[in-house]
Amino acid sequence: MRIAIVGGTGDIGEGLALRLAQHNDVIIGSRDAAKAQEAANNYNKVLKERGLKDGIRGATNEEAAKGAEVVILAVKYQVAVPTLQALETANALEDQIVITPVVPMTKPKLCAFTPPPCGSATKECCAVLKPGIRLVSTFQTLPAPRLANLDDRLGFDVIVCADDEVAKKTVMGLAQQLGDIRTLDGGGLEEASLIESLTPLLINLAIKNKTKPLSIKFV
Amino acid sequence: MRIAIVGGTGDIGEGLALRLAQHNDVIIGSRDAAKAQEAANNYNKVLKERGLKDGIRGATNEEAAKGAEVVILAVKYQVAVPTLQALETANALEDQIVITPVVPMTKPKLCAFTPPPCGSATKECCAVLKPGIRLVSTFQTLPAPRLANLDDRLGFDVIVCADDEVAKKTVMGLAQQLGDIRTLDGGGLEEASLIESLTPLLINLAIKNKTKPLSIKFV
Repeated sequence: MRIAIVGGTGDIGEGLALRLAQHNDVIIGSRDAAKAQEAANNYNKVLKERGLKDGIRGATNEEAAKGAEVVILAVKYQVAVPTLQALETANALEDQIVITPVVPMTKPKLCAFTPPPCGSATKECCAVLKPGIRLVSTFQTLPAPRLANLDDRLGFDVIVCADDEVAKKTVMGLAQQLGDIRTLDGGGLEEASLIESLTPLLINLAIKNKTKPLSIKFV
Repeated sequence: MRIAIVGGTGDIGEGLALRLAQHNDVIIGSRDAAKAQEAANNYNKVLKERGLKDGIRGATNEEAAKGAEVVILAVKYQVAVPTLQALETANALEDQIVITPVVPMTKPKLCAFTPPPCGSATKECCAVLKPGIRLVSTFQTLPAPRLANLDDRLGFDVIVCADDEVAKKTVMGLAQQLGDIRTLDGGGLEEASLIESLTPLLINLAIKNKTKPLSIKFV
């Protein structure tokens, strides 16, 4: 499957690229194509050193998204909607599945969930997407450093929210490629605020209890 | 320790009473003293049949809270603030620790977290308590039927939020008496909305994925 990781040069993008590249054709997107190519080169080096499948490419966000089957919006909340709008303006979105792991939060001392008036970043993203683009909200609970560490087998649950059941199933399949992951159905996009608010909770728990970056399991 | 479970005749109150009675002096409170006594009798019967320590008593909410060291507010969101106000009016609260597991939520089809304008039921409860009453927000992730089933060893994490560190530690100790529980520091009362919103998430996950009632572990 061809997967574009828009804003894939940092944070959660790195681990997603490294892991998804084992089973897919992964293109890193950035506003700056040279920066994307540099990140792709670095990721490929990591994979080569481990004898793993490489071949990650870099491109502008628009070039990466065009022709991809899945577009992962791996950007900060503040630029999520503008990034989607730029992709739409460039006609880079047609019938893709768009994955949003975006979380609106502030961190004065501990983290707070600060959703927009519509209730979630997911619903805000959904509002700017034209019909036919299937939005899936997930990956909010994947800690970036552990995802980027290929020695970490992950042993997490990943919750997936979507209104389109086929897109939900497709993304559940991708999540299971990341490691020792169980996927859970979190309902529709209306329910996404309940998984977005897990990110500030996980960060706070790691800070207050002095643990490694945490993820979640339902028992 | 003397513990009052206000609204302890149903839901989470049952399991808390059965389990906490093994190490504490537990009084069930209800608006109707006879109903509280009937619940206490039923709980004692369960404990006796298992050869466990019984001695749970029943009383009005006000009588239960008076002289207790810890008061657990095991009531629905809609009556949480009125219940606290009734306790204050009756001078039943003096210097207790008050535990709120209260969650504001609605359930049209799946559950939604519907906090008041201040952000959480916890902050709303805090606003009506006079100084000296130490509020602790926790137990939102304990599934009532599993708590009431004494064969369930529970294997959960329980997150505790409080501004008073001594009260937080005391309540962490109580949580560990419930079963195979690890307690985690979730920060202050300001952070409580992040744990209140876990309840609708857990309910939705169990519905959508057809599982037993779920709780949570951080890994």
